[in-house]
Amino acid sequence: MTNLQARSVGKVYLIGAGPGAADLITVRGAKLLAKADIVFYDALVDPSMLELCPQAKMVLVGKRCGKLSTAQTFISKRLVDASEQFSLVVRLKGGDPMIFGRADEEITTLRKYGVPFEIVPGITSALAAAASIEQSLTLRGVSRSVAFVTLAKAKEEDDSTANHPTLSNLADTMVYYMGKKDTSTIALGLMSAGKAADTPAVIVESISTPAERIFRTKLSELANGAALPWLSENAPAILVIGEALRTNSIDLLESETQDGLQNQITFTDSARSA
Amino acid sequence: MTNLQARSVGKVYLIGAGPGAADLITVRGAKLLAKADIVFYDALVDPSMLELCPQAKMVLVGKRCGKLSTAQTFISKRLVDASEQFSLVVRLKGGDPMIFGRADEEITTLRKYGVPFEIVPGITSALAAAASIEQSLTLRGVSRSVAFVTLAKAKEEDDSTANHPTLSNLADTMVYYMGKKDTSTIALGLMSAGKAADTPAVIVESISTPAERIFRTKLSELANGAALPWLSENAPAILVIGEALRTNSIDLLESETQDGLQNQITFTDSARSA
Repeated sequence: MTNLQARSVGKVYLIGAGPGAADLITVRGAKLLAKADIVFYDALVDPSMLELCPQAKMVLVGKRCGKLSTAQTFISKRLVDASEQFSLVVRLKGGDPMIFGRADEEITTLRKYGVPFEIVPGITSALAAAASIEQSLTLRGVSRSVAFVTLAKAKEEDDSTANHPTLSNLADTMVYYMGKKDTSTIALGLMSAGKAADTPAVIVESISTPAERIFRTKLSELANGAALPWLSENAPAILVIGEALRTNSIDLLESETQDGLQNQITFTDSARSA
Repeated sequence: MTNLQARSVGKVYLIGAGPGAADLITVRGAKLLAKADIVFYDALVDPSMLELCPQAKMVLVGKRCGKLSTAQTFISKRLVDASEQFSLVVRLKGGDPMIFGRADEEITTLRKYGVPFEIVPGITSALAAAASIEQSLTLRGVSRSVAFVTLAKAKEEDDSTANHPTLSNLADTMVYYMGKKDTSTIALGLMSAGKAADTPAVIVESISTPAERIFRTKLSELANGAALPWLSENAPAILVIGEALRTNSIDLLESETQDGLQNQITFTDSARSA
Protein backbone atom coordinates (compact mmCIF):
# COMPACT_ATOMS: atom_id res chain seq x y z
CA MET A 1 0.00 0.00 0.00
CA THR A 2 1.36 3.37 -1.01
CA ASN A 3 1.17 5.42 2.12
CA LEU A 4 2.22 9.05 1.87
CA GLN A 5 1.77 9.27 5.65
CA ALA A 6 0.72 12.76 6.66
CA ARG A 7 2.32 14.05 9.87
CA SER A 8 -1.07 13.54 11.48
CA VAL A 9 -1.79 14.87 14.91
CA GLY A 10 -5.51 14.68 14.44
CA LYS A 11 -8.44 12.65 13.27
CA VAL A 12 -10.97 13.59 10.60
CA TYR A 13 -14.68 12.96 11.15
CA LEU A 14 -16.89 12.90 8.06
CA ILE A 15 -20.25 13.80 9.55
CA GLY A 16 -23.68 13.81 7.96
CA ALA A 17 -25.43 17.04 8.90
CA GLY A 18 -28.84 15.70 7.99
CA PRO A 19 -31.51 17.41 5.88
CA GLY A 20 -31.35 20.95 7.28
CA ALA A 21 -32.76 21.42 10.78
CA ALA A 22 -29.92 21.67 13.32
CA ASP A 23 -31.52 19.12 15.65
CA LEU A 24 -31.77 16.46 12.95
CA ILE A 25 -28.04 15.75 13.20
CA THR A 26 -27.19 12.69 15.31
CA VAL A 27 -26.23 13.03 18.97
CA ARG A 28 -22.78 11.68 18.05
CA GLY A 29 -22.38 14.27 15.30
CA ALA A 30 -23.49 17.12 17.59
CA LYS A 31 -21.05 16.06 20.34
CA LEU A 32 -18.15 15.94 17.88
CA LEU A 33 -19.08 19.35 16.47
CA ALA A 34 -19.04 20.78 20.01
CA LYS A 35 -15.43 19.60 20.42
CA ALA A 36 -14.17 20.31 16.89
CA ASP A 37 -11.12 22.47 16.25
CA ILE A 38 -12.00 23.13 12.63
CA VAL A 39 -15.12 22.43 10.55
CA PHE A 40 -15.25 22.26 6.75
CA TYR A 41 -18.90 22.59 5.76
CA ASP A 42 -21.06 22.53 2.63
CA ALA A 43 -23.32 25.31 1.42
CA LEU A 44 -26.08 22.70 1.84
CA VAL A 45 -25.55 22.74 5.60
CA ASP A 46 -28.05 25.03 7.33
CA PRO A 47 -26.45 28.07 9.02
CA SER A 48 -28.27 27.27 12.29
CA MET A 49 -26.13 24.15 12.54
CA LEU A 50 -22.97 26.21 12.88
CA GLU A 51 -24.19 27.32 16.30
CA LEU A 52 -23.37 23.78 17.43
CA CYS A 53 -19.66 24.56 17.14
CA PRO A 54 -19.02 28.20 18.19
CA GLN A 55 -15.48 27.28 19.30
CA ALA A 56 -14.39 25.91 15.93
CA LYS A 57 -12.66 27.57 13.02
CA MET A 58 -15.22 27.45 10.19
CA VAL A 59 -14.40 26.90 6.53
CA LEU A 60 -17.09 26.98 3.83
CA VAL A 61 -16.36 24.54 1.01
CA GLY A 62 -18.42 22.59 -1.45
CA LYS A 63 -21.28 23.57 -3.59
CA ARG A 64 -24.96 23.96 -4.03
CA CYS A 65 -26.78 23.35 -7.29
CA GLY A 66 -23.48 23.66 -9.14
CA LYS A 67 -22.65 27.10 -7.73
CA LEU A 68 -19.72 28.11 -5.57
CA SER A 69 -17.91 24.87 -6.11
CA THR A 70 -14.60 24.13 -4.49
CA ALA A 71 -12.77 21.40 -6.40
CA GLN A 72 -13.22 18.08 -4.64
CA THR A 73 -9.52 17.20 -4.80
CA PHE A 74 -8.71 20.53 -3.17
CA ILE A 75 -11.17 19.85 -0.32
CA SER A 76 -9.70 16.40 0.24
CA LYS A 77 -6.17 17.81 0.43
CA ARG A 78 -7.28 20.51 2.87
CA LEU A 79 -8.60 17.81 5.21
CA VAL A 80 -5.18 16.14 5.16
CA ASP A 81 -3.45 19.45 5.83
CA ALA A 82 -5.86 20.25 8.69
CA SER A 83 -5.17 16.86 10.31
CA GLU A 84 -1.52 17.93 10.65
CA GLN A 85 -2.48 21.02 12.65
CA PHE A 86 -5.65 20.19 14.54
CA SER A 87 -6.64 17.24 16.67
CA LEU A 88 -10.36 17.14 15.84
CA VAL A 89 -11.20 17.96 12.24
CA VAL A 90 -14.82 17.78 11.04
CA ARG A 91 -16.00 17.55 7.46
CA LEU A 92 -19.71 18.36 7.72
CA LYS A 93 -21.74 17.28 4.69
CA GLY A 94 -25.42 17.93 3.97
CA GLY A 95 -27.57 14.81 4.35
CA ASP A 96 -25.60 11.58 4.67
CA PRO A 97 -21.97 11.39 3.49
CA MET A 98 -22.45 8.01 1.79
CA ILE A 99 -25.40 8.87 -0.49
CA PHE A 100 -24.62 11.38 -3.24
CA GLY A 101 -22.11 12.91 -0.82
CA ARG A 102 -18.89 12.17 -2.70
CA ALA A 103 -17.32 11.05 0.57
CA ASP A 104 -15.47 8.33 -1.34
CA GLU A 105 -13.08 10.88 -2.86
CA GLU A 106 -12.24 12.29 0.56
CA ILE A 107 -11.94 8.81 2.09
CA THR A 108 -9.53 7.69 -0.64
CA THR A 109 -7.31 10.72 -0.02
CA LEU A 110 -7.37 10.34 3.77
CA ARG A 111 -6.52 6.64 3.44
CA LYS A 112 -3.73 7.41 0.95
CA TYR A 113 -2.13 9.82 3.42
CA GLY A 114 -2.71 7.53 6.38
CA VAL A 115 -4.93 10.03 8.17
CA PRO A 116 -7.21 8.41 10.79
CA PHE A 117 -10.85 9.07 10.03
CA GLU A 118 -14.35 8.00 11.02
CA ILE A 119 -17.72 8.38 9.35
CA VAL A 120 -20.83 9.47 11.24
CA PRO A 121 -24.00 8.85 9.23
CA GLY A 122 -26.69 11.50 8.75
CA ILE A 123 -30.39 11.62 7.92
CA THR A 124 -30.55 11.61 4.15
CA SER A 125 -33.11 14.00 2.64
CA ALA A 126 -35.41 11.22 1.44
CA LEU A 127 -36.07 10.04 5.00
CA ALA A 128 -36.74 13.57 6.23
CA ALA A 129 -39.05 14.15 3.26
CA ALA A 130 -41.03 11.03 4.17
CA ALA A 131 -41.34 12.29 7.74
CA SER A 132 -42.53 15.70 6.51
CA ILE A 133 -45.19 14.29 4.19
CA GLU A 134 -46.11 11.69 6.83
CA GLN A 135 -46.02 8.87 4.32
CA SER A 136 -43.91 5.71 4.35
CA LEU A 137 -41.60 5.08 1.41
CA THR A 138 -42.40 1.38 1.73
CA LEU A 139 -45.79 -0.17 2.33
CA ARG A 140 -46.69 -3.79 2.99
CA GLY A 141 -48.22 -5.36 -0.07
CA VAL A 142 -47.60 -2.20 -2.14
CA SER A 143 -43.93 -1.22 -1.99
CA ARG A 144 -41.10 -3.50 -0.95
CA SER A 145 -38.34 -1.44 -2.53
CA VAL A 146 -37.30 2.19 -2.69
CA ALA A 147 -34.59 3.61 -4.94
CA PHE A 148 -32.65 6.83 -4.36
CA VAL A 149 -31.51 8.25 -7.67
CA THR A 150 -29.65 11.28 -8.97
CA LEU A 151 -29.53 12.45 -12.57
CA ALA A 152 -26.46 14.57 -11.81
CA LYS A 153 -23.66 13.54 -14.12
CA ALA A 154 -19.92 13.58 -13.80
CA LYS A 155 -18.37 15.80 -16.50
CA GLU A 156 -16.88 12.84 -18.32
CA GLU A 157 -20.22 11.02 -18.57
CA ASP A 158 -22.65 10.97 -21.45
CA ASP A 159 -25.05 13.90 -21.39
CA SER A 160 -28.10 12.06 -22.69
CA THR A 161 -30.74 11.41 -20.05
CA ALA A 162 -33.24 10.01 -22.54
CA ASN A 163 -31.96 6.48 -22.09
CA HIS A 164 -30.69 6.96 -18.59
CA PRO A 165 -30.50 3.56 -16.91
CA THR A 166 -31.91 4.94 -13.67
CA LEU A 167 -35.12 5.78 -15.50
CA SER A 168 -35.83 2.20 -16.48
CA ASN A 169 -34.87 0.06 -13.49
CA LEU A 170 -37.89 0.64 -11.35
CA ALA A 171 -38.15 0.22 -7.64
CA ASP A 172 -41.68 0.42 -6.21
CA THR A 173 -40.94 3.87 -4.78
CA MET A 174 -38.56 6.20 -6.63
CA VAL A 175 -36.83 9.12 -4.89
CA TYR A 176 -34.89 11.66 -6.95
CA TYR A 177 -32.20 13.86 -5.45
CA MET A 178 -31.34 17.18 -7.10
CA GLY A 179 -33.71 16.38 -9.94
CA LYS A 180 -36.06 19.34 -9.91
CA LYS A 181 -34.95 20.70 -13.27
CA ASP A 182 -35.73 17.28 -14.69
CA THR A 183 -39.21 16.67 -13.28
CA SER A 184 -40.86 16.33 -16.70
CA THR A 185 -38.11 14.09 -18.09
CA ILE A 186 -38.29 11.85 -15.03
CA ALA A 187 -42.08 11.56 -15.21
CA LEU A 188 -42.09 10.78 -18.93
CA GLY A 189 -39.32 8.22 -18.46
CA LEU A 190 -41.13 6.47 -15.61
CA MET A 191 -44.40 6.33 -17.53
CA SER A 192 -42.75 4.86 -20.63
CA ALA A 193 -41.03 2.36 -18.33
CA GLY A 194 -44.38 1.20 -17.03
CA LYS A 195 -45.42 3.36 -14.06
CA ALA A 196 -49.11 4.32 -14.21
CA ALA A 197 -49.96 7.89 -15.24
CA ASP A 198 -51.88 8.44 -12.01
CA THR A 199 -49.01 7.32 -9.75
CA PRO A 200 -48.78 9.83 -6.90
CA ALA A 201 -45.78 12.18 -6.85
CA VAL A 202 -44.67 14.56 -4.11
CA ILE A 203 -41.94 17.20 -4.15
CA VAL A 204 -40.52 18.49 -0.87
CA GLU A 205 -38.37 21.61 -1.01
CA SER A 206 -36.05 22.96 1.73
CA ILE A 207 -36.82 19.88 3.82
CA SER A 208 -37.05 20.31 7.60
CA THR A 209 -36.28 24.06 7.47
CA PRO A 210 -38.76 26.94 8.09
CA ALA A 211 -38.90 27.36 4.29
CA GLU A 212 -40.14 23.80 3.74
CA ARG A 213 -42.82 23.46 1.05
CA ILE A 214 -44.73 20.39 -0.16
CA PHE A 215 -46.25 19.88 -3.62
CA ARG A 216 -48.53 16.92 -4.32
CA THR A 217 -49.35 15.83 -7.83
CA LYS A 218 -49.36 12.74 -10.07
CA LEU A 219 -47.02 11.42 -12.73
CA SER A 220 -49.02 12.62 -15.76
CA GLU A 221 -49.24 16.17 -14.39
CA LEU A 222 -45.55 16.16 -13.54
CA ALA A 223 -44.85 15.16 -17.15
CA ASN A 224 -46.94 18.14 -18.29
CA GLY A 225 -44.72 20.51 -16.31
CA ALA A 226 -47.11 20.98 -13.35
CA ALA A 227 -44.23 21.44 -10.92
CA LEU A 228 -42.31 24.04 -12.88
CA PRO A 229 -44.16 27.20 -11.73
CA TRP A 230 -44.08 25.96 -8.14
CA LEU A 231 -40.39 25.17 -7.81
CA SER A 232 -38.02 27.71 -6.30
CA GLU A 233 -34.88 28.73 -8.11
CA ASN A 234 -32.20 27.60 -5.71
CA ALA A 235 -33.79 25.51 -2.97
CA PRO A 236 -32.78 21.85 -2.69
CA ALA A 237 -35.67 19.50 -3.40
CA ILE A 238 -36.59 15.83 -3.30
CA LEU A 239 -39.06 14.19 -5.68
CA VAL A 240 -40.83 11.04 -4.44
CA ILE A 241 -42.94 8.87 -6.77
CA GLY A 242 -44.87 5.71 -6.02
CA GLU A 243 -48.11 3.95 -5.12
CA ALA A 244 -47.02 4.00 -1.46
CA LEU A 245 -47.94 7.71 -1.49
CA ARG A 246 -51.56 7.08 -2.45
CA THR A 247 -53.55 8.54 0.41
CA ASN A 248 -56.78 10.44 0.48
CA SER A 249 -55.57 14.00 -0.14
CA ILE A 250 -58.57 15.58 1.58
CA ASP A 251 -57.97 13.55 4.73
CA LEU A 252 -54.33 14.55 4.62
CA LEU A 253 -55.09 18.22 4.10
CA GLU A 254 -57.63 18.28 6.94
CA SER A 255 -55.28 16.47 9.26
CA GLU A 256 -52.39 18.77 8.47
CA THR A 257 -54.52 21.89 8.93
CA GLN A 258 -55.85 20.51 12.19
CA ASP A 259 -52.31 20.02 13.46
CA GLY A 260 -51.66 23.69 12.81
CA LEU A 261 -48.96 22.85 10.31
CA GLN A 262 -47.47 26.13 9.11
CA ASN A 263 -45.79 24.85 6.00
CA GLN A 264 -47.20 25.64 2.62
CA ILE A 265 -48.83 22.64 1.01
CA THR A 266 -49.97 22.84 -2.58
CA PHE A 267 -52.22 20.41 -4.38
CA THR A 268 -52.42 20.48 -8.13
CA ASP A 269 -55.88 20.64 -9.61
CA SER A 270 -56.49 17.17 -10.98
CA ALA A 271 -58.76 18.64 -13.65
CA ARG A 272 -56.07 20.89 -15.04
CA SER A 273 -54.25 18.39 -17.19
CA ALA A 274 -57.32 16.29 -17.93
CA MET B 1 -63.37 12.58 7.06
CA THR B 2 -64.45 10.03 9.64
CA ASN B 3 -62.92 11.26 12.84
CA LEU B 4 -63.39 9.06 15.89
CA GLN B 5 -61.70 11.81 17.92
CA ALA B 6 -59.82 10.35 20.86
CA ARG B 7 -60.05 12.37 24.06
CA SER B 8 -56.48 13.39 23.41
CA VAL B 9 -54.45 15.17 26.00
CA GLY B 10 -51.16 14.28 24.40
CA LYS B 11 -49.16 14.06 21.24
CA VAL B 12 -47.52 10.98 19.76
CA TYR B 13 -43.98 11.15 18.34
CA LEU B 14 -42.93 8.38 15.96
CA ILE B 15 -39.18 8.45 16.37
CA GLY B 16 -36.50 6.60 14.42
CA ALA B 17 -34.02 5.14 16.92
CA GLY B 18 -31.34 4.64 14.26
CA PRO B 19 -29.29 1.49 13.65
CA GLY B 20 -28.38 0.54 17.22
CA ALA B 21 -25.85 2.79 18.95
CA ALA B 22 -27.63 5.11 21.40
CA ASP B 23 -25.81 8.20 20.08
CA LEU B 24 -26.91 7.61 16.50
CA ILE B 25 -30.41 8.85 17.28
CA THR B 26 -31.03 12.47 16.23
CA VAL B 27 -30.70 15.31 18.74
CA ARG B 28 -34.43 15.96 18.29
CA GLY B 29 -35.24 12.33 19.05
CA ALA B 30 -33.00 12.27 22.15
CA LYS B 31 -34.55 15.48 23.53
CA LEU B 32 -38.06 14.10 23.08
CA LEU B 33 -37.10 10.81 24.75
CA ALA B 34 -35.74 12.75 27.73
CA LYS B 35 -39.18 14.40 28.17
CA ALA B 36 -41.36 11.40 27.31
CA ASP B 37 -44.07 10.16 29.66
CA ILE B 38 -44.32 6.75 28.02
CA VAL B 39 -42.20 5.01 25.36
CA PHE B 40 -43.35 2.09 23.20
CA TYR B 41 -40.21 0.49 21.77
CA ASP B 42 -39.24 -2.31 19.40
CA ALA B 43 -37.06 -5.28 20.23
CA LEU B 44 -34.78 -3.90 17.48
CA VAL B 45 -34.04 -0.85 19.65
CA ASP B 46 -30.76 -1.28 21.52
CA PRO B 47 -31.20 -1.48 25.34
CA SER B 48 -28.58 1.28 25.82
CA MET B 49 -31.00 3.69 24.21
CA LEU B 50 -33.51 3.26 27.00
CA GLU B 51 -31.07 5.09 29.28
CA LEU B 52 -32.05 8.21 27.35
CA CYS B 53 -35.48 8.16 29.01
CA PRO B 54 -35.13 6.93 32.64
CA GLN B 55 -38.20 8.97 33.64
CA ALA B 56 -40.55 7.31 31.17
CA LYS B 57 -42.83 4.32 31.50
CA MET B 58 -41.38 1.74 29.10
CA VAL B 59 -43.43 -0.69 27.03
CA LEU B 60 -41.80 -3.33 24.81
CA VAL B 61 -43.81 -3.97 21.66
CA GLY B 62 -43.02 -5.12 18.16
CA LYS B 63 -40.88 -7.86 16.91
CA ARG B 64 -37.50 -9.05 15.80
CA CYS B 65 -36.97 -11.60 13.06
CA GLY B 66 -40.58 -12.68 13.39
CA LYS B 67 -40.34 -13.43 17.12
CA LEU B 68 -42.22 -11.82 19.97
CA SER B 69 -44.62 -10.02 17.70
CA THR B 70 -47.30 -7.76 19.04
CA ALA B 71 -50.07 -7.36 16.48
CA GLN B 72 -49.64 -4.08 14.62
CA THR B 73 -53.28 -3.04 15.04
CA PHE B 74 -52.95 -3.60 18.78
CA ILE B 75 -49.84 -1.37 18.93
CA SER B 76 -51.61 1.36 16.97
CA LYS B 77 -54.59 1.30 19.33
CA ARG B 78 -52.32 1.41 22.38
CA LEU B 79 -50.77 4.62 21.04
CA VAL B 80 -54.24 6.16 20.80
CA ASP B 81 -55.08 5.02 24.34
CA ALA B 82 -51.78 6.40 25.66
CA SER B 83 -52.47 9.80 24.08
CA GLU B 84 -55.58 10.05 26.28
CA GLN B 85 -53.52 9.63 29.45
CA PHE B 86 -50.09 11.09 28.76
CA SER B 87 -48.96 14.35 27.22
CA LEU B 88 -45.79 13.11 25.49
CA VAL B 89 -46.05 9.64 23.98
CA VAL B 90 -43.09 8.19 22.05
CA ARG B 91 -43.19 5.30 19.59
CA LEU B 92 -39.50 4.40 19.18
CA LYS B 93 -38.80 2.31 16.09
CA GLY B 94 -35.49 0.73 15.02
CA GLY B 95 -33.87 2.51 12.06
CA ASP B 96 -36.15 5.00 10.31
CA PRO B 97 -39.95 4.81 10.73
CA MET B 98 -40.63 5.38 7.03
CA ILE B 99 -38.47 2.59 5.54
CA PHE B 100 -39.67 -0.94 6.33
CA GLY B 101 -40.97 0.48 9.62
CA ARG B 102 -44.69 -0.03 9.11
CA ALA B 103 -45.28 3.48 10.45
CA ASP B 104 -48.08 3.89 7.91
CA GLU B 105 -50.37 1.61 9.91
CA GLU B 106 -49.81 3.62 13.08
CA ILE B 107 -50.17 6.92 11.23
CA THR B 108 -53.48 5.85 9.70
CA THR B 109 -54.86 4.93 13.12
CA LEU B 110 -53.61 8.13 14.79
CA ARG B 111 -55.14 10.19 11.99
CA LYS B 112 -58.42 8.25 12.20
CA TYR B 113 -58.71 9.04 15.91
CA GLY B 114 -57.59 12.65 15.46
CA VAL B 115 -54.52 12.20 17.65
CA PRO B 116 -51.82 14.83 16.99
CA PHE B 117 -48.56 13.22 15.93
CA GLU B 118 -45.17 14.03 14.49
CA ILE B 119 -42.51 11.93 12.81
CA VAL B 120 -38.81 12.23 13.65
CA PRO B 121 -36.61 10.49 11.08
CA GLY B 122 -33.82 8.09 12.05
CA ILE B 123 -30.64 6.75 10.51
CA THR B 124 -31.71 3.75 8.48
CA SER B 125 -29.40 0.70 8.73
CA ALA B 126 -28.13 1.03 5.16
CA LEU B 127 -26.56 4.42 5.90
CA ALA B 128 -24.94 3.18 9.09
CA ALA B 129 -23.65 0.11 7.25
CA ALA B 130 -22.04 2.35 4.61
CA ALA B 131 -20.37 4.37 7.38
CA SER B 132 -19.09 1.16 9.02
CA ILE B 133 -17.61 -0.27 5.83
CA GLU B 134 -16.33 3.19 4.89
CA GLN B 135 -17.71 2.91 1.37
CA SER B 136 -20.19 5.15 -0.42
CA LEU B 137 -23.40 3.61 -1.70
CA THR B 138 -23.18 5.93 -4.71
CA LEU B 139 -20.08 6.74 -6.72
CA ARG B 140 -19.66 9.25 -9.53
CA GLY B 141 -19.46 7.48 -12.88
CA VAL B 142 -20.21 4.10 -11.26
CA SER B 143 -23.39 4.25 -9.21
CA ARG B 144 -26.05 6.93 -9.54
CA SER B 145 -28.78 4.96 -7.81
CA VAL B 146 -29.20 2.83 -4.72
CA ALA B 147 -32.22 0.68 -3.89
CA PHE B 148 -33.31 -0.44 -0.42
CA VAL B 149 -35.21 -3.71 -0.64
CA THR B 150 -36.87 -6.22 1.65
CA LEU B 151 -37.95 -9.74 0.75
CA ALA B 152 -40.19 -9.86 3.81
CA LYS B 153 -43.71 -10.67 2.74
CA ALA B 154 -47.07 -9.77 4.14
CA LYS B 155 -49.07 -12.92 5.04
CA GLU B 156 -51.52 -12.37 2.23
CA GLU B 157 -48.76 -12.14 -0.39
CA ASP B 158 -47.46 -14.87 -2.66
CA ASP B 159 -44.75 -16.96 -1.03
CA SER B 160 -42.63 -17.56 -4.12
CA THR B 161 -39.34 -15.66 -4.09
CA ALA B 162 -38.06 -17.23 -7.34
CA ASN B 163 -39.62 -14.57 -9.53
CA HIS B 164 -39.72 -11.88 -6.90
CA PRO B 165 -39.45 -8.43 -8.54
CA THR B 166 -37.11 -7.23 -5.79
CA LEU B 167 -34.56 -9.81 -6.97
CA SER B 168 -34.13 -7.94 -10.22
CA ASN B 169 -31.54 -5.30 -10.97
CA LEU B 170 -33.36 -2.25 -9.59
CA ALA B 171 -30.41 0.06 -9.06
CA ASP B 172 -26.64 0.35 -9.37
CA THR B 173 -26.23 -0.44 -5.67
CA MET B 174 -28.65 -2.86 -4.01
CA VAL B 175 -29.20 -2.94 -0.25
CA TYR B 176 -31.25 -5.76 1.30
CA TYR B 177 -32.91 -5.42 4.71
CA MET B 178 -33.69 -8.56 6.72
CA GLY B 179 -32.49 -10.71 3.84
CA LYS B 180 -29.81 -12.84 5.42
CA LYS B 181 -31.72 -16.09 5.09
CA ASP B 182 -32.02 -15.32 1.41
CA THR B 183 -28.43 -14.41 0.51
CA SER B 184 -28.06 -17.16 -2.12
CA THR B 185 -31.46 -16.48 -3.67
CA ILE B 186 -30.69 -12.77 -3.87
CA ALA B 187 -27.27 -13.35 -5.47
CA LEU B 188 -28.65 -15.78 -8.05
CA GLY B 189 -31.51 -13.40 -8.83
CA LEU B 190 -29.20 -10.43 -9.37
CA MET B 191 -26.80 -12.43 -11.57
CA SER B 192 -29.62 -13.66 -13.78
CA ALA B 193 -30.86 -10.05 -13.94
CA GLY B 194 -27.52 -8.92 -15.27
CA LYS B 195 -25.18 -8.10 -12.38
CA ALA B 196 -21.64 -9.44 -12.95
CA ALA B 197 -20.59 -12.54 -10.97
CA ASP B 198 -17.66 -10.64 -9.45
CA THR B 199 -19.76 -7.72 -8.22
CA PRO B 200 -18.63 -6.94 -4.66
CA ALA B 201 -20.99 -7.80 -1.80
CA VAL B 202 -20.73 -6.87 1.87
CA ILE B 203 -22.82 -8.02 4.82
CA VAL B 204 -22.87 -5.97 8.01
CA GLU B 205 -24.39 -7.57 11.10
CA SER B 206 -25.42 -5.83 14.36
CA ILE B 207 -24.56 -2.48 12.78
CA SER B 208 -23.05 0.20 15.02
CA THR B 209 -23.17 -1.99 18.15
CA PRO B 210 -20.18 -3.63 19.94
CA ALA B 211 -21.20 -6.90 18.22
CA GLU B 212 -20.83 -5.43 14.73
CA ARG B 213 -19.26 -7.78 12.17
CA ILE B 214 -18.40 -7.26 8.51
CA PHE B 215 -18.19 -9.93 5.79
CA ARG B 216 -16.80 -9.08 2.35
CA THR B 217 -17.39 -11.34 -0.64
CA LYS B 218 -18.63 -11.24 -4.23
CA LEU B 219 -21.90 -12.16 -5.91
CA SER B 220 -20.83 -15.59 -7.22
CA GLU B 221 -19.55 -16.67 -3.78
CA LEU B 222 -22.72 -15.39 -2.14
CA ALA B 223 -24.71 -17.52 -4.60
CA ASN B 224 -22.63 -20.53 -3.52
CA GLY B 225 -23.63 -20.01 0.10
CA ALA B 226 -20.37 -18.36 1.25
CA ALA B 227 -22.18 -16.24 3.84
CA LEU B 228 -24.15 -19.02 5.47
CA PRO B 229 -21.53 -20.31 7.96
CA TRP B 230 -20.63 -16.73 8.89
CA LEU B 231 -24.12 -15.39 9.66
CA SER B 232 -25.40 -15.32 13.23
CA GLU B 233 -28.73 -16.82 14.12
CA ASN B 234 -30.64 -13.81 15.37
CA ALA B 235 -28.63 -10.66 14.64
CA PRO B 236 -30.10 -8.10 12.24
CA ALA B 237 -28.03 -7.74 9.08
CA ILE B 238 -27.76 -5.65 5.94
CA LEU B 239 -26.52 -6.95 2.59
CA VAL B 240 -24.99 -4.41 0.18
CA ILE B 241 -24.18 -5.31 -3.44
CA GLY B 242 -22.67 -3.15 -6.17
CA GLU B 243 -19.67 -1.94 -8.13
CA ALA B 244 -19.47 1.10 -5.83
CA LEU B 245 -18.01 -1.29 -3.22
CA ARG B 246 -15.06 -2.29 -5.41
CA THR B 247 -12.02 -1.24 -3.41
CA ASN B 248 -8.67 -2.91 -2.99
CA SER B 249 -9.40 -5.28 -0.11
CA ILE B 250 -5.77 -5.37 1.00
CA ASP B 251 -5.66 -1.58 1.25
CA LEU B 252 -8.88 -1.66 3.20
CA LEU B 253 -7.71 -4.36 5.56
CA GLU B 254 -4.40 -2.58 6.22
CA SER B 255 -6.13 0.72 6.80
CA GLU B 256 -8.68 -0.77 9.17
CA THR B 257 -6.01 -2.63 11.15
CA GLN B 258 -3.97 0.54 11.32
CA ASP B 259 -6.91 2.42 12.78
CA GLY B 260 -7.10 -0.18 15.53
CA LEU B 261 -10.59 -1.18 14.46
CA GLN B 262 -11.80 -3.79 16.91
CA ASN B 263 -14.62 -5.20 14.87
CA GLN B 264 -14.29 -8.56 13.26
CA ILE B 265 -13.80 -8.30 9.53
CA THR B 266 -13.90 -11.42 7.41
CA PHE B 267 -12.80 -11.72 3.82
CA THR B 268 -13.77 -14.76 1.81
CA ASP B 269 -10.97 -16.49 -0.01
CA SER B 270 -11.47 -15.54 -3.66
CA ALA B 271 -9.86 -18.82 -4.74
CA ARG B 272 -12.39 -20.90 -2.85
CA SER B 273 -15.21 -20.82 -5.33
CA ALA B 274 -12.94 -20.61 -8.38
